Amino acid sequence: MNKNLIKPSILPGFMELLPKEQQKFNDIVNKILDVYEKNGCLPMDTPIIEKAEVLLAKSGGETEKQVYRFQKGKNDLTLRFDLTVPFARFTAQYYDRLQFPFKRYQLGKVYRGERNQKGRYREFYQCDVDIIGNGKLSIYNDAYVISLVYKAFKAIKLEQFKFQISNRKILKGIFNELKIDNQLEVMILIDKYDKIGKSKFEEELIELIGDKKSEFLNNILDTDGDNNEKIEKLSNLNIKDTYFIDGISELKKVKEMLNTLDVEDDKFTINLKIIRGLDYYTGTVFETLLTDNEKYGSICSGGRYDNLAGNYTDKILPGVGISIGMTRLFFILKEIGFIDNYNLESSLDYLIMPIGDTINYCAKIMKKLEKKGYGASIYFEDDTLKKKMNYADKIGVKYVILVGEDEVKRNEVKIKNMESGNNVVIAYDEL
Amino acid sequence: MNKNLIKPSILPGFMELLPKEQQKFNDIVNKILDVYEKNGCLPMDTPIIEKAEVLLAKSGGETEKQVYRFQKGKNDLTLRFDLTVPFARFTAQYYDRLQFPFKRYQLGKVYRGERNQKGRYREFYQCDVDIIGNGKLSIYNDAYVISLVYKAFKAIKLEQFKFQISNRKILKGIFNELKIDNQLEVMILIDKYDKIGKSKFEEELIELIGDKKSEFLNNILDTDGDNNEKIEKLSNLNIKDTYFIDGISELKKVKEMLNTLDVEDDKFTINLKIIRGLDYYTGTVFETLLTDNEKYGSICSGGRYDNLAGNYTDKILPGVGISIGMTRLFFILKEIGFIDNYNLESSLDYLIMPIGDTINYCAKIMKKLEKKGYGASIYFEDDTLKKKMNYADKIGVKYVILVGEDEVKRNEVKIKNMESGNNVVIAYDEL
Repeated sequence: MNKNLIKPSILPGFMELLPKEQQKFNDIVNKILDVYEKNGCLPMDTPIIEKAEVLLAKSGGETEKQVYRFQKGKNDLTLRFDLTVPFARFTAQYYDRLQFPFKRYQLGKVYRGERNQKGRYREFYQCDVDIIGNGKLSIYNDAYVISLVYKAFKAIKLEQFKFQISNRKILKGIFNELKIDNQLEVMILIDKYDKIGKSKFEEELIELIGDKKSEFLNNILDTDGDNNEKIEKLSNLNIKDTYFIDGISELKKVKEMLNTLDVEDDKFTINLKIIRGLDYYTGTVFETLLTDNEKYGSICSGGRYDNLAGNYTDKILPGVGISIGMTRLFFILKEIGFIDNYNLESSLDYLIMPIGDTINYCAKIMKKLEKKGYGASIYFEDDTLKKKMNYADKIGVKYVILVGEDEVKRNEVKIKNMESGNNVVIAYDEL
Repeated sequence: MNKNLIKPSILPGFMELLPKEQQKFNDIVNKILDVYEKNGCLPMDTPIIEKAEVLLAKSGGETEKQVYRFQKGKNDLTLRFDLTVPFARFTAQYYDRLQFPFKRYQLGKVYRGERNQKGRYREFYQCDVDIIGNGKLSIYNDAYVISLVYKAFKAIKLEQFKFQISNRKILKGIFNELKIDNQLEVMILIDKYDKIGKSKFEEELIELIGDKKSEFLNNILDTDGDNNEKIEKLSNLNIKDTYFIDGISELKKVKEMLNTLDVEDDKFTINLKIIRGLDYYTGTVFETLLTDNEKYGSICSGGRYDNLAGNYTDKILPGVGISIGMTRLFFILKEIGFIDNYNLESSLDYLIMPIGDTINYCAKIMKKLEKKGYGASIYFEDDTLKKKMNYADKIGVKYVILVGEDEVKRNEVKIKNMESGNNVVIAYDEL
């Protein structure tokens, strides 16, 4: 090998796919976005590079450490680390020119300098959908965004998932009722429940709030039964705190609207242990677990927030949103074999192969097929038939049309079905 | 206004669109990519951040100056400044797992620290399609990639463009014939022809190669007539240099194949002044001008190269490609009024509005419409009818369905055509 050559390679933590998998990735993404589009969500595209002062307006220590930040000329620049902050900035910036409720989706790459490990990416696609109200936003939207993801997963034929839904007001109401002062610490602890396990959790909870309150809270967190039973049991606690009452009422509406929107009770479970971080969400929160593969954690999550863009505007913009980490989801779907079995339809229906000097006839066939809406292309290279057919097989085209001089003379078209191996010969006019 | 607020803004040189224009941008992109897909081109997606040593393997001073380059930890990183270098790296890296001819398209953002001026972007989308052979590649592909862009522009109903086509071998052959030593300087001068104008060009050309050769070369550059006449006139020069003979032969084949592929002679013109930079292209080169708006320069360009990935592999990988600067194209199409007149079909066909407590019936209608493949959504907010209708009008939905309690009782659906303003009432079952 030539010594001056540079070894072609990419950085660790960046996903790159070969064409077959890239086609599947794109197909999945397109089907999800198509659902969002058909539900009236508008596309958004924001720069990957933004001013550091704008993007890091609110963020704390962990974000700052992970962020890609650099100087170019006099500018202090940051690569976006999520789509939510740019969305907030966008909504504040163009507030006067947007229609509310503002329903938007965005697919884009975001950047985090994560520790290098399998399944964690430093560049990854997020796919977000949010609905933002101007001053107020109906609680039904909380169910609606969940139903969008439900439809999106149906569209890609992913069935083995289950939403985990809670409302943060319920816990807050309970904390108030129990006169818990260190609410934040308790929230943080509940957020860690799945990581540390039940016994360690209960131990630490007692340390934080004592035996009696712990027992009461544990009973609530462990409420069992179906979704209706859970709501009933919670209601029967007869807690009078307004957060609690609001939370239960909202949760009930979300549950009923989910059912109305065909998201049936076997597709979601009420789970008060769902917290979703600390300072962002204020009401409904949800995660999504792969059934039989819960170890991968949530594949998409989101919730309700009181105010999207408080760093940038005085306008009160409540919203609800859901985010799919597409790159990580694709990684997980590969791990569980979903991608290998994913049924991809080739956009190229016909590959036309001249044998001898028949290229004009090939072009004629291609144009006719294209007019009928088929995908078609010509194999121009002067290769052996074996090599040509091997190529057709590898790229997964549905039909091959072999055009020899005999076919041209007889005005015929010989079509080979690549799946069955069968050949048919038809007249050009019947094509 | 609250003093702690941060002014929402983005950096200069970054394009950001409001939803209506973003929809048009996406629609244009999707239609172009659909053409590429249906012609059997495979999608590719590479990281935006790459190792500086890999991405800057070959590049010279101008690229280095414009590039976004920074450190993260121990890594020397660069944001990609085009899609060609990553494509070369990719093809070398996965050579053994790709099928040749490798036809790929890629849409992605690239970064250049350009001087800030109207219509120049620091972050912009490129949309590339290339066909790469393993050792060899038929000349017909040169016409084929041009025909792909032709079809793509037809798909978005852009008609007012004309390809400018040349083959660099022709000029090289003429230079050889004229025994011109400073060929590179002459090429650079011809490349500047449009910028500096005819008289300045001729003046400088005489300085470079003297009176006699200048006259000969000028006559060739000014060859007039239709494409057939130009090829004939060039052939009649009877130059025996092999570059010249190859170049004319290739140009003729490209011209004929373009016609065969329905790209008629009124859509392209042979123009020997087309150079396309200096050290990359080796044969066919082309640009695309907007007729009546030539001042904007080329809206998409490309050509044939002998070897894609010589920095990364010993394998000889000839190719031909074409690139559309989508962000700049969109800017130009806005300038000439094409975007304002661009016909966008809303993905949302029906917006359903509950009036009173009719939300379950609304959901039932939505589900029925969705099953039939329509885009549909519900307006959940408790706003005035005027506000609701204004929203529907602004987002450009085709039909509004108003659902009052009367409609529920009678099992009817009242549909308002937003364009005509007409209402129809039909039975739910007839929906």
